[in-house]
This record gives sequence, structure tokens and C-alpha cells, in this order.
Amino acid sequence: MSASAPRDAGGRLERRLDYAFERPALLARALTHRSAASDHNERLEFLGDGVLNFVIAAALFERCPEAPEGDLSRLRAALVRERTLAAIAEEIDLGEALVLGPGENRDGSRRRASILADGVEAVLGAIYCDGGFAAAQTVVHALYASRLAALPSADSLKDAKTRLQEWLQARARERPEYTLVSVTGADHCQHFVARCHLADTGDTVDGEGGGRRKAEQDAARRMLERLHADDQ
Amino acid sequence: MSASAPRDAGGRLERRLDYAFERPALLARALTHRSAASDHNERLEFLGDGVLNFVIAAALFERCPEAPEGDLSRLRAALVRERTLAAIAEEIDLGEALVLGPGENRDGSRRRASILADGVEAVLGAIYCDGGFAAAQTVVHALYASRLAALPSADSLKDAKTRLQEWLQARARERPEYTLVSVTGADHCQHFVARCHLADTGDTVDGEGGGRRKAEQDAARRMLERLHADDQ
Repeated sequence: MSASAPRDAGGRLERRLDYAFERPALLARALTHRSAASDHNERLEFLGDGVLNFVIAAALFERCPEAPEGDLSRLRAALVRERTLAAIAEEIDLGEALVLGPGENRDGSRRRASILADGVEAVLGAIYCDGGFAAAQTVVHALYASRLAALPSADSLKDAKTRLQEWLQARARERPEYTLVSVTGADHCQHFVARCHLADTGDTVDGEGGGRRKAEQDAARRMLERLHADDQ
Repeated sequence: MSASAPRDAGGRLERRLDYAFERPALLARALTHRSAASDHNERLEFLGDGVLNFVIAAALFERCPEAPEGDLSRLRAALVRERTLAAIAEEIDLGEALVLGPGENRDGSRRRASILADGVEAVLGAIYCDGGFAAAQTVVHALYASRLAALPSADSLKDAKTRLQEWLQARARERPEYTLVSVTGADHCQHFVARCHLADTGDTVDGEGGGRRKAEQDAARRMLERLHADDQ
């Protein structure tokens, strides 16, 4: 990533995407971060996020004919999240073609992952604008070929609260109850403690985190660990 | 909505959608709520949610060439939310064609809006399966014609925290700070009080609600009212 991309970085990216733009100005805009110019990629990113989410939804619908809606949602979330998109950006070396403002040339940071992920979406939005839905779909399928061929198990993507509820349900036990125990710290660094309680056995476990939801997930995870340990 | 839809309700719906299914079984599945049969519409709803979100995103991208990404996002959220989808379902009388289980035949409830909205998405998913992207896009454009022709102002869709921040920013003032004051009540009926504080003037306003975010939005709304009153 640089203030000005190396010569013909766009052309090399087109070859890696196996897509040649009719209107190269669309690609140039897709590769321009808002820190670099007023004609930047945020609108194309909005469009690309939409086409990506839908193409992945349709691919999962077709490849997983038995999967219930919840599994499809979790699989899609895993495939379109920032971490996955940033990995795809690395695979196609999107970084060398991105144009950033002087304040944004930081490497190896969380910020970098976010800029790369947004860049992938913007390029997909540009391809949709330039070549239509089928063209964008073809590129998404190519970028995701290995990931769609080796999908994780839907169960492994469930969060701790869901896994705990299903574990209890399978044993015909009551649903867990969650309460907020305390919130400490000021402003933007508040610390939450949440409690998970199983009414039928009286089991109680506390969890903590930087938000209510995180604290509840942490409590559910600890409760599952305890239940699994008791099961041994 | 009924346990078995009236004769040829599907055919009438096809005429109102101006779309004839190659595979009517897809439409039948899209109209079957999970309470009625195991071959229900939840997977098609997942697919239809994706195509709807994307078609609306692309339509807004084209119709609002000057709108920044944030405005596009807010407009899309307003167009695809449950309330809008339920209104569209009423316009095409989707209800007469939906098949529900015996426990779900409740009218006039919030539950009804949710079932109708899901039904619209499922029908769109079925059209995509049956006729491809262009067919689904044509139907979405027709269903949304009046709404896309008379879009609300993007500003009117902003939440209170965003409006407060922009009001302060426009006056070169500091950002507001939010803190959680208290959480009371047990289990699933907890009551939150949040505080909005303007460091530069010392103004402090409390808001309340059934969740942290709602309490913060309420505090921001009250702070805006106070600032507007002071402005007079």
C-alpha cells in the first residue's frame, strides 16, 4: 500500500482477477482509499459488500442443500468477515495496487486488514458496475474456490451461548439465564461481568468482557467447560 | 394466512408479481411457513434476503450518485426492514397465499408482520432460483417502484447519537461522552440508564431504555432537545 501505486499495478491485479475492465476508471476508483482523494472507493465498497454477500449466500444455498438457514448464515458470516477478506486481499496482492493518503501508510496493523478488506469489496463493486452481475459472480467464485470447496462445519461456527443452549436442549434441560452483575470503569473502557445461571441445578458461572454480550459469551463458554468436565 | 391457502392463491400471486414460475414447487415452498411443514421457506428466505439487499443496494447506488456510503446504508436499511417488507406483503396480498401451521394463525400481531416480511423474502429467493438474477431484480424493482421514486431524506434516517455528533462537529465542539449509569431489574427485563456528557460545557443528560444502546440513544435525543431549546 502506498501513496501512489506502482506502475501497472492495476493491470497486474486485473490479470490476477482474470477480469479486464471496460472502464479502467472504475478500477482506479475502487483502489483509492478515502485518505488519498475525494473520488474514493466507499460507495463502490457499499455496492461490492452487497454483491459479495449475495453471491456467497447463493453459493452456500446450492452447495449445502440440507443445511438449515442458521447454518447458512453462520457460514456466510465466516466467509465475508474482515479477516477472510483481508486474507483474500493478500492472496491477490491487492495491497500493491491500493492508493492511500500519507497518514494511512501503516503496515501490519488491524487498520491494514480493514483497508484491504474494504478494497476487495470495492473492486467487486467496480466489476459489477463494469460487467454486470454474472461477471462479479464469476470473480467471487474464483476468489472463494478453495474456501467453498472446504467449508468449516457449521457447528464449529456457533457461539458459546448457542452451543450451551443446544447442549442443554439435547438433555431436555431448562434454558440458561443471563444477568448483568456489574459494570465498572469509565467512558470507553467499561468492564462488564455477566452471570450464567442454570435454574435446574443451581450452577452459576461469571464471565467478563468489554461489553455485555462478550461477558455473556464468556460466561456461557465457562459454563460449557464446567459441564464437559462434569461429564468426564 | 391460513392452514391451507385458498385455491389458486399462488396463481393470483404470480399475476400480481407479474412473474410465472417454471417450477411452481419453488413458489409453494416459499409460501410454506415452518409451522406448516418440514419443507418450509426458511432457506429460500435466506437466499431472498441476499438478493433483496443487493438489488436495493445497486438501485440506490444508481439513483443517488452523490450520496455517501453512510446515506446509502441508512436508505437501504429503511427499505429492507421488516415494517417495509410487511407493507409490501399487504400490497400484494401475500397473506392469502401463505400456508401456516395451526398454532400460527394469529392476525394483527407483531408476529404477523414478521411472517409476512419473511414470506416476501422467500418468494424473491424462489424467483432467483427459478428465473435467475435478472428475473429477481425485475420483480424487486416493480415491488419497490414507488418507494425508490420517493426516497426519504438520508438525514431523517440518522439516529440520535449520529445527529448529536454531527451537530457538535458542525460547531467545532468536542464529541459527546456516554457512560452507563445503572442497570436494574432481573433477567430479561433489565432497565438501563445511560448518561450523555458534553465535556466542554459540562452539560449532562440521562436517558433510559431496555438496553444500553437504547438508553444512549435516548440520552442523545434529550441532549439534542436541550441544545435546540438553548439555540432559540
